[in-house]
Amino acid sequence: MQNLLTIDDFHQKAISLLPKLSRDYYESGSDEEKALRRNRRAFSRLLIRPKCLVDVSKSDTNCEFLGKKFKSPIAVAPTAFHKLCHPRGELASVEGISRFGGLMICSSWGTTPLEEIAENRGDATLWFQLYVYKDRPTTEALIRRAENAGFEALVLTVDTPVLGRRLADKRNAFTLPPPLKFANMVATNDSKVHMPKVPIGDSGLMAYVSSQIDQSLNWDSLKWLVGFSRLPVIVKGIMRSDDALKALQCGAKGIIVSNHGGRQMDCAPATIEALPEIAKVAGQIPVFLDGGIRNGRDVFKALALGASGIFIGRAILYGLTVGGADGVERVLDILQEEFEHCMKLAGCQSIADIRNTPQIVVSSSHYSKL
Amino acid sequence: MQNLLTIDDFHQKAISLLPKLSRDYYESGSDEEKALRRNRRAFSRLLIRPKCLVDVSKSDTNCEFLGKKFKSPIAVAPTAFHKLCHPRGELASVEGISRFGGLMICSSWGTTPLEEIAENRGDATLWFQLYVYKDRPTTEALIRRAENAGFEALVLTVDTPVLGRRLADKRNAFTLPPPLKFANMVATNDSKVHMPKVPIGDSGLMAYVSSQIDQSLNWDSLKWLVGFSRLPVIVKGIMRSDDALKALQCGAKGIIVSNHGGRQMDCAPATIEALPEIAKVAGQIPVFLDGGIRNGRDVFKALALGASGIFIGRAILYGLTVGGADGVERVLDILQEEFEHCMKLAGCQSIADIRNTPQIVVSSSHYSKL
Amino acid sequence: MQNLLTIDDFHQKAISLLPKLSRDYYESGSDEEKALRRNRRAFSRLLIRPKCLVDVSKSDTNCEFLGKKFKSPIAVAPTAFHKLCHPRGELASVEGISRFGGLMICSSWGTTPLEEIAENRGDATLWFQLYVYKDRPTTEALIRRAENAGFEALVLTVDTPVLGRRLADKRNAFTLPPPLKFANMVATNDSKVHMPKVPIGDSGLMAYVSSQIDQSLNWDSLKWLVGFSRLPVIVKGIMRSDDALKALQCGAKGIIVSNHGGRQMDCAPATIEALPEIAKVAGQIPVFLDGGIRNGRDVFKALALGASGIFIGRAILYGLTVGGADGVERVLDILQEEFEHCMKLAGCQSIADIRNTPQIVVSSSHYSKL
Amino acid sequence: MQNLLTIDDFHQKAISLLPKLSRDYYESGSDEEKALRRNRRAFSRLLIRPKCLVDVSKSDTNCEFLGKKFKSPIAVAPTAFHKLCHPRGELASVEGISRFGGLMICSSWGTTPLEEIAENRGDATLWFQLYVYKDRPTTEALIRRAENAGFEALVLTVDTPVLGRRLADKRNAFTLPPPLKFANMVATNDSKVHMPKVPIGDSGLMAYVSSQIDQSLNWDSLKWLVGFSRLPVIVKGIMRSDDALKALQCGAKGIIVSNHGGRQMDCAPATIEALPEIAKVAGQIPVFLDGGIRNGRDVFKALALGASGIFIGRAILYGLTVGGADGVERVLDILQEEFEHCMKLAGCQSIADIRNTPQIVVSSSHYSKL
Ligand SMILES: Cc1cc2nc3c(=O)[nH]c(=O)nc-3n(C[C@H](O)[C@H](O)[C@H](O)COP(=O)(O)O)c2cc1C
Ligand SMILES: Cc1cc2nc3c(=O)[nH]c(=O)nc-3n(C[C@H](O)[C@H](O)[C@H](O)COP(=O)(O)O)c2cc1C
Ligand SMILES: Cc1cc2nc3c(=O)[nH]c(=O)nc-3n(C[C@H](O)[C@H](O)[C@H](O)COP(=O)(O)O)c2cc1C
Ligand SMILES: Cc1cc2nc3c(=O)[nH]c(=O)nc-3n(C[C@H](O)[C@H](O)[C@H](O)COP(=O)(O)O)c2cc1C
Repeated sequence: MQNLLTIDDFHQKAISLLPKLSRDYYESGSDEEKALRRNRRAFSRLLIRPKCLVDVSKSDTNCEFLGKKFKSPIAVAPTAFHKLCHPRGELASVEGISRFGGLMICSSWGTTPLEEIAENRGDATLWFQLYVYKDRPTTEALIRRAENAGFEALVLTVDTPVLGRRLADKRNAFTLPPPLKFANMVATNDSKVHMPKVPIGDSGLMAYVSSQIDQSLNWDSLKWLVGFSRLPVIVKGIMRSDDALKALQCGAKGIIVSNHGGRQMDCAPATIEALPEIAKVAGQIPVFLDGGIRNGRDVFKALALGASGIFIGRAILYGLTVGGADGVERVLDILQEEFEHCMKLAGCQSIADIRNTPQIVVSSSHYSKL
Repeated sequence: MQNLLTIDDFHQKAISLLPKLSRDYYESGSDEEKALRRNRRAFSRLLIRPKCLVDVSKSDTNCEFLGKKFKSPIAVAPTAFHKLCHPRGELASVEGISRFGGLMICSSWGTTPLEEIAENRGDATLWFQLYVYKDRPTTEALIRRAENAGFEALVLTVDTPVLGRRLADKRNAFTLPPPLKFANMVATNDSKVHMPKVPIGDSGLMAYVSSQIDQSLNWDSLKWLVGFSRLPVIVKGIMRSDDALKALQCGAKGIIVSNHGGRQMDCAPATIEALPEIAKVAGQIPVFLDGGIRNGRDVFKALALGASGIFIGRAILYGLTVGGADGVERVLDILQEEFEHCMKLAGCQSIADIRNTPQIVVSSSHYSKL
Repeated sequence: MQNLLTIDDFHQKAISLLPKLSRDYYESGSDEEKALRRNRRAFSRLLIRPKCLVDVSKSDTNCEFLGKKFKSPIAVAPTAFHKLCHPRGELASVEGISRFGGLMICSSWGTTPLEEIAENRGDATLWFQLYVYKDRPTTEALIRRAENAGFEALVLTVDTPVLGRRLADKRNAFTLPPPLKFANMVATNDSKVHMPKVPIGDSGLMAYVSSQIDQSLNWDSLKWLVGFSRLPVIVKGIMRSDDALKALQCGAKGIIVSNHGGRQMDCAPATIEALPEIAKVAGQIPVFLDGGIRNGRDVFKALALGASGIFIGRAILYGLTVGGADGVERVLDILQEEFEHCMKLAGCQSIADIRNTPQIVVSSSHYSKL
Repeated sequence: MQNLLTIDDFHQKAISLLPKLSRDYYESGSDEEKALRRNRRAFSRLLIRPKCLVDVSKSDTNCEFLGKKFKSPIAVAPTAFHKLCHPRGELASVEGISRFGGLMICSSWGTTPLEEIAENRGDATLWFQLYVYKDRPTTEALIRRAENAGFEALVLTVDTPVLGRRLADKRNAFTLPPPLKFANMVATNDSKVHMPKVPIGDSGLMAYVSSQIDQSLNWDSLKWLVGFSRLPVIVKGIMRSDDALKALQCGAKGIIVSNHGGRQMDCAPATIEALPEIAKVAGQIPVFLDGGIRNGRDVFKALALGASGIFIGRAILYGLTVGGADGVERVLDILQEEFEHCMKLAGCQSIADIRNTPQIVVSSSHYSKL
């Protein structure tokens, strides 16, 4: 791992290690994978206008989410099925994140029961990502378990009424290889615990979502959830300012601007494109971003454009694949190191400084006129 | 066909099956094939800004053209010579379209007589595409036959005073291989029934058009047609709002924004680029679009920008080549499935909802400023 | 030649026939060849918005330059050394142009004496391109000879105070292979008749220009020329509207917007980009364009943006290389055919119609906003 | 060297000669090398709008920096470790520059003591580039030595509080191969004289900077330096107009717009992009530019957009590698020749003329609208 200097290095290495089924599941976006690429390219088009002659010997990256302090704005997005790439799965992830002192959002679709992750959380902070099942009691039970296990927030994913058409998964007839399963579902209900077997051309996960997940989820459902749960509710998957305002009105305590890593609406804008209009209206509540973060400059750009913090999805899976808990920790360390380095080269002493410097980040079209 | 998940898959497969003469005839655009590529690229540049937390369990795609209800806004553009890729030709096409319950525009240049298609139309709705021959009686006879056979509209193609220079056809000295012929022409008139033989460097179809088709067609001709025929007249091939207004004034009952799939004016704008200015002025009458539609997101975009429905040209030919009536049906099913999927991910419950949501579709330049 | 359907086909063929020295001399632009490519790409970025339902059976392309009627706005730019690619050189060119009934500008640097071309001009109209020698009597003699031989205008090239750095010519130590020479220079003056021999890394033509051509040429020189000659003076190589105004004030009777086919200032705009601002100020006098014209759509675009006519440089050399007089004629015929075809598809009946239709040609950025 | 006609030719040749360690050190930018590429591409996007009919027989390139006259605005940026590519190192460089009659900024990190360079300066003018060491006495000693040796200005580099992450150097575990060393450091202090040895994955130079260079440098430090030194102070590495104003207020006598050749902030704008806003505010003091200059047109563009002169970094190293003092001289001669040539083709008689001609240089987007 000593030779892996960037997340892209980890990416290449992970690709070489993973079997096709898992690799395709991790890598793919939906349909033509335009949103997947756009997330990256939109970051590329942003420029940082560095300040100079600022004392950066004492630059710090401290921040606070939902009243809790963190050493870094870099946190971990929910991703399903960690055992697809590492035998210890979510337990290895949480161990790496704990060493980093970070925040992890655990997916509803873990391959390790949420209680087990919580018991092993060490210095990690845990939030729970919620998929709402058609069967409301199933959903309610999940929420109560997360509350009891010590999760500190609920993250409601709102971009998945149906699952994105990920073609590679369809060509692979993707399904969880036994003995892996939806470890948060109770063993008595087979259709919730296991993906259906499907023929080539179909995805077991698409079929699962279509039979289990509630397509009728709406703003009233959010209000219900805010009332039902003791935990603050964060809405994940908002891409428009009008929806951000509605979330606010329904009682959300935070927003994650996300297009699900390019895995749902293939023609979606990049998340870093959608961020500014949402940050502008969100006012009181924090706005986070995920999608396409691959280095510390991306983190800097997201904060400059209004994010309170950012989440990484695939990067963690690359680390987990390559080196289990060590890999996860290393990936977080690299991003943090790059982010601090970027702050210093930009002449910023703190996250507040990043946000308050006018035009510290601009679109490259800023310079296209003379 | 189980493994063919997208229209692009059908495209690749069809290419591998077709002999060079037909493949080139189907694939090519005119001259440098810029309009052909532009049709596609212009769709690529559009983004969909998804809404979330909308109950999409009851999304529906119903629509109405010329007073008749359809389950889908996806319909079939006129394309000539279906027997070039399948022995059953237009009859296989209409069978697939009937199973889908769709709308088919039959070309003047079918390789099956229009009456035979009409008899086999099943649940398909038929419109007739008209090329106006220099010999006016020929034209009038065609119209009356279409009316009598049960076609429900006439579609006047206005972008073909001369045929586009399709270089591949010239290099192939393209001509219909016997026994194929212009099946709607009466057998006694050889120069209308058969393309001339031409040397390498010429296209038989260009020569045919130049000798048979009326270059003097003008707005008065349209007025004449509207008066002459009992059927509503749709004008196909309009690319400017001033022309749309004229068509309206001449009594057209619909407009198809089209650049003939990039086969006529090579420097034409993409149809999806031309659509908005035309939709803005068309007011009372429906505006349709064809050109470059290859997936359900494209359909969504066209509707969002003002189309009442869309037509597909080559996609149907790919399905026909690969699987006859089954292939045609499958192609329509894939597009419909993708379109519905896209609606759900965009949080739209109906076609009206797509059209009425502000900025549901934007140019990617929407985000280029900060 | 039957298989060569486009100028690009002629280009490919010519490249395969020419020896490296001539090929490089014809093909190259200066320095990084950016202007050379830009001339082409700028045409590519323009779109034609076709009108429909116009009677184009009687479209015509007649036009008038300096009071003389031509069947086509397509004319021939001055290019040096025609014997580098064909043994009959300028005589073959003028024969082909005569058959087309066209206009040819003969270069000062012909490999055939101007009188000999004039005697063989047939139906061609001839203008004479002037390079001003440091030695003023040489220049004056050239002018008088052109006047006496029946040339109908003088074309003063103003973009060549020094010769562009064409790297390929330098690597080839380009010089005219004997017995070729500057055939318009009088035999007694060797340094004007022959390029110097140079080592690898230098260009004989650059050395020739630097020793012979007048770097001090200025607006007063133009005034002098207008006074000195009986012929109307056209200024070739203007790229800015302020310079166009000055040319007008000095008595020029026409302007050719030109960057010398990308062979002089490598960072110059494309000529089609520079055209509109110049056409706007030129008012009374005709504005022509050369640079990057390779097909009939390019001709259409130049006229739509304000050109009275266009000149082709390399295209003629490709025709000459491939087929002598026949090749030259064929190249002109192809362009003319494509241009007429384009007019019909655009719904234009005449050159005036092209110029007077609003937004018949637009930049592709026209459509980049929604 | 006769065959090397451009800086790009020198570049290719140098690459073929250098061992991997030096080559990577010279070539690389930081992180993804976006700023490195952007510096070049931004020049490419600029167009020169040539004037014509200007007497350019007497064009001249004279200019004046800090009250001293130079024949050319092309000068030499500070680059470290010249002995990495040539045994005579900085002495060969200064010899070539002297022959050109040019200006050289010597790096703090020379592999030849500054006094030795100064003694051999011949007709070269020398400025001294300063890195501020945490150990202030070290810094002060350097300054006094430069003053005493006859350097005529101090150039304070402000873009390097930490060293950019140059991945190739990390993969090479870059360190100066013995006997090379930081020749300006006094032999008694080993940690300043030698880079630390580092494992693969680290860069010795990054480690050196992090242990030796002062991260707390700020605007007060600049004020201190202006007071402390007898020499005028130039600030190198400014990329924003607000910082330019601050530098002015702190007493700087010049500004070099620089992103360190793309080696520090990887997401920085190109220097030619940042130049105009800085030139606009700098008023009294000269603004220079470095970064991406590879030919004479680039020089022209920088002057047109407000630079008083420009500096070249890598180009000199290519010359040095290929031909020692001769190579350095040749590189400067080529650039000068190209610059003069460009002036003539642009119709400019002097540097003042370049700056005073409206829109002589424009962004290519200038032409994107019709
Ligand atoms: C393999 C994979 C599995 C994912 N699983 C979930 C999930 O179970 N729940 C969820 O809300 N998001 C899920 N996501 C989306 C991520 O939370 C996040 O939005 C996305 O990965 C961010 O983009 P990035 O991968 O470019 O960092 C998943 C993403 C990937 C790549
Ligand atoms: C092979 C082929 C044949 C066509 N024949 C006709 C025709 O006979 N009449 C007509 O109006 N349009 C014809 N068209 C144009 C289509 O109606 C339609 O405008 C175009 O195919 C739409 O673009 P698409 O192929 O990208 O979907 C033809 C197109 C193709 C590709
Ligand atoms: C090989 C060659 C020789 C040329 N010789 C001359 C010349 O002698 N005098 C002149 O004014 N322009 C000369 N030109 C420039 C042309 O007149 C014209 O501006 C240019 O070729 C137009 O661009 P095109 O080649 O893309 O059509 C020459 C161009 C070429 C390619
Ligand atoms: C190999 C190398 C070493 C450099 N060393 C220094 C240095 O010691 N001090 C400094 O201020 N800049 C240094 N620079 C930056 C240059 O001064 C200059 O900003 C840059 O090279 C200009 O870009 P260019 O290489 O594209 O011309 C160095 C650049 C390179 C490529």
